[in-house]
Amino acid sequence: LPGAQAAGLGAPECYNPRAMQLLQEVADFIRQERLLEPSQLVILGVSGGADSLCLLDVLHRLGYPLVVAHFDHGLRPESGQEALRVQEMAAFRGLDFEVERGALTKESYLDGSLEAAARHARYRFLLRVATEKAAQRIATGHTADDQIETLLMNLLRGAGPDGLRGMKPLTPIGRWPEFGPGVQSDVQLARPLLGLGRNRTRDYCARHGLSPVSDASNQDRRFLRNRVRHDLLESLEYYNPEVRQALLRTSRIMGDVADLLETLVDQAWENCVRSAGAGALAFNAAVFTKAPLAIQRRMLRRAVAQLGVPTREAGFEAVERVRTAMLGEGPSQLNLPGRVAVERVGSEWLLARPDARVTFPDYPQLDAPTAVRVPDSGSVELAHGWRLRVGYQAMEDGAQDHVSDETTVVFDADQIPHPIIVRSSVSGEKLAPFGMHGRVKLSDVFIDHKVPRRLRARWPVVSSGDDILWVPGLRRGSLAPVGASTQRIVELRLVPPRAEG
Amino acid sequence: LPGAQAAGLGAPECYNPRAMQLLQEVADFIRQERLLEPSQLVILGVSGGADSLCLLDVLHRLGYPLVVAHFDHGLRPESGQEALRVQEMAAFRGLDFEVERGALTKESYLDGSLEAAARHARYRFLLRVATEKAAQRIATGHTADDQIETLLMNLLRGAGPDGLRGMKPLTPIGRWPEFGPGVQSDVQLARPLLGLGRNRTRDYCARHGLSPVSDASNQDRRFLRNRVRHDLLESLEYYNPEVRQALLRTSRIMGDVADLLETLVDQAWENCVRSAGAGALAFNAAVFTKAPLAIQRRMLRRAVAQLGVPTREAGFEAVERVRTAMLGEGPSQLNLPGRVAVERVGSEWLLARPDARVTFPDYPQLDAPTAVRVPDSGSVELAHGWRLRVGYQAMEDGAQDHVSDETTVVFDADQIPHPIIVRSSVSGEKLAPFGMHGRVKLSDVFIDHKVPRRLRARWPVVSSGDDILWVPGLRRGSLAPVGASTQRIVELRLVPPRAEG
Repeated sequence: LPGAQAAGLGAPECYNPRAMQLLQEVADFIRQERLLEPSQLVILGVSGGADSLCLLDVLHRLGYPLVVAHFDHGLRPESGQEALRVQEMAAFRGLDFEVERGALTKESYLDGSLEAAARHARYRFLLRVATEKAAQRIATGHTADDQIETLLMNLLRGAGPDGLRGMKPLTPIGRWPEFGPGVQSDVQLARPLLGLGRNRTRDYCARHGLSPVSDASNQDRRFLRNRVRHDLLESLEYYNPEVRQALLRTSRIMGDVADLLETLVDQAWENCVRSAGAGALAFNAAVFTKAPLAIQRRMLRRAVAQLGVPTREAGFEAVERVRTAMLGEGPSQLNLPGRVAVERVGSEWLLARPDARVTFPDYPQLDAPTAVRVPDSGSVELAHGWRLRVGYQAMEDGAQDHVSDETTVVFDADQIPHPIIVRSSVSGEKLAPFGMHGRVKLSDVFIDHKVPRRLRARWPVVSSGDDILWVPGLRRGSLAPVGASTQRIVELRLVPPRAEG
Repeated sequence: LPGAQAAGLGAPECYNPRAMQLLQEVADFIRQERLLEPSQLVILGVSGGADSLCLLDVLHRLGYPLVVAHFDHGLRPESGQEALRVQEMAAFRGLDFEVERGALTKESYLDGSLEAAARHARYRFLLRVATEKAAQRIATGHTADDQIETLLMNLLRGAGPDGLRGMKPLTPIGRWPEFGPGVQSDVQLARPLLGLGRNRTRDYCARHGLSPVSDASNQDRRFLRNRVRHDLLESLEYYNPEVRQALLRTSRIMGDVADLLETLVDQAWENCVRSAGAGALAFNAAVFTKAPLAIQRRMLRRAVAQLGVPTREAGFEAVERVRTAMLGEGPSQLNLPGRVAVERVGSEWLLARPDARVTFPDYPQLDAPTAVRVPDSGSVELAHGWRLRVGYQAMEDGAQDHVSDETTVVFDADQIPHPIIVRSSVSGEKLAPFGMHGRVKLSDVFIDHKVPRRLRARWPVVSSGDDILWVPGLRRGSLAPVGASTQRIVELRLVPPRAEG
């Protein structure tokens, strides 16, 4: 096949020791980092540059079944030709080929946020191909030089360990929050060349008769990555000629630190955070306060990501403001960018999106803002297993023991007006409290008992007509007191979840 | 005192709101970071530049008793004048003044390692003054800009969280390993301006009539810090105009991460590492293997520091090689730079300097390479509470139960040659093992029993004349077996520390 080699599609055999060395290094890296299982189908993103061509040839020689996937950004006139060239590479090796043409214009790429959008479109395409082919792995040709550039770009924005680790060798792309819940899958993105310098892939291509396409936009200084690649790194080498090795060292250290922090956050999360309904998370304030500062910060970042706020929107300062508040050194109610409300609710801090259906299993709450008639015996079910239990009985000796407390009240059954209703409160309504003259506003009862604002709308109120008989857990009304003449009583009891009675 | 103000020594009063704001910020920072206790004596390093003059004025106004300490590097002709100027500043405020003139030449400063030596000389001077004045705190005028420069200089070398945090607001300078054990004290170095930009201190000086000396060497591009300050940071601002804030954010995140890691290393150290004599540390191999990778790395870095190896000598790759070996994926004996030997000894990994007097409390070892006569009854004391116990007794029925094992042997007391001696082994000596024909080399006995090489020189040998009677814990010799004609026996027993018997 010398013709094929002359055409730059690759040499079928390879006895070059330096090239064999690269093959071995990549195989070792794949094994060490558990990137691919033997013979696993791989969707390979191939731009046609030296890195991706090298990876194509290496994975093919290592025996992995491949689908070659090319995303044509369509920004340069020659890009269609390049797509054909990659197709030829695939056909020459008898591999399936998939292509998609992007819809963005060059100008849109130059805006930083749309540069991200382009990357998003490219990965989305790879994910789609993976789904269609039922593949578990995507691979890209990112090298150690890409890693260094990523680290520096993240540093310029002010990064922590996750940013300074750069790219992971293996990452669950199917769960990246940026793709939304609709795309969720177990597909992973592998980067088998992440340990190799870019000069190695160029050398490999040269020795194997692989002719990479030359993408002129790699020189375009309007792209941040190109400025970092060509200008910043060169100037850093003036300070330390070995700066690339130094930055790779930083990347390794940060990767291991980030992994450790992630494990610690997993543990802390388990003890501290509960899902408080769709779009809402609740942090136990006391547990949160005891966590180390670095873990507090990461728990909040995870929360923000889970609530669907882009990391760039809720930056360091915003997270820090919330963290400080959660330690009791700030307001008890504030907002995070990305429309997340943060507020203290009892022993918890609640982070909730505006559309969140927040649940409070620790408090008596109505499932819905409806009114329910209290039966003569049995229970009215509230949310999360709470109940209002009702029972009529004849007045006996020792009835004076039926002293009302916060969770149990008794009424004179013949005096109490009917029907008895459980409902949510009405704005502005008042209560005539037992043992007091006059009436107080229900809102003041909530305030007196420090009921968080969030809980008031669905707090159950037991009433008859316009009269409030009882605010369960808080205050009894003055109607139908048990007295010397009482023949029968009705007892109402607020029963928490999983309790008897 | 308008004259003093005209002379640039400072204005006695200050009603300028921006200046008051700075005073408040520094006071807050001192309180938050617990840098100084109220009215605590502070040794203040004052170069005469804007940062240190600002700090001098601020701390004086905040009421801290101060000693002004000036280190004259003596590199420029005008440096003597500058020292006088700082002296004037102190005298104007009625403060003690201390000065020392350095012995290095300008050329020696330009070498990176001697730049560190100059810093060392400067801090050593401050430490000496602190000791003389019985002060617990030294303060320097490092600002947020110095912090950013430090971060970048560390990054250029390839740093982890400790390097990327930059300087700590408070650091136990009296315990810095670079000063050696002779200088150990509780003195701490505080940096009260670390939260402020350099422009703030310049502004403060201008508003308070303080005229900083202008150090021309701050422009000298042969100093790495000046290149980073003037050139690198400017070029980074081209990529992100807000890069200083971004890097300060990284510094804060890294500081908190490093603090957390340090706490985790404290805990892991407790469970994993023991002092194995002066200049030696022993790691429990199994415990070390279970620690997270990032913690393993930091434990080794701490070990290296404790053994007095400069961090620059034992770099990332060297530590990584040792770490890998300690996980069982490398040789069982290797060297760290800085003349530290690393080797597997039983269940431990030993890190030892060449001059270390290594101790092995888990094995029977002689305290010194001497010979001791075994008494007729009682014990011979070995190192770390191990003992060799001896007892003569009449032969009784059931003497067949006196079967020798590794820790107990019996001899025919009338056959055994005297005197019985406990000593260290002699190179090349041989043993006639019990129950075997011929003689074996003692070194082969050690090898058969997998006795680490380190333990052989001081392993006790029980002998009489040239004959080895017993190698405790390993092998009995063939002499004086207990037989049918035995009248009396002598029993030798190897007793571990804290055991009865």
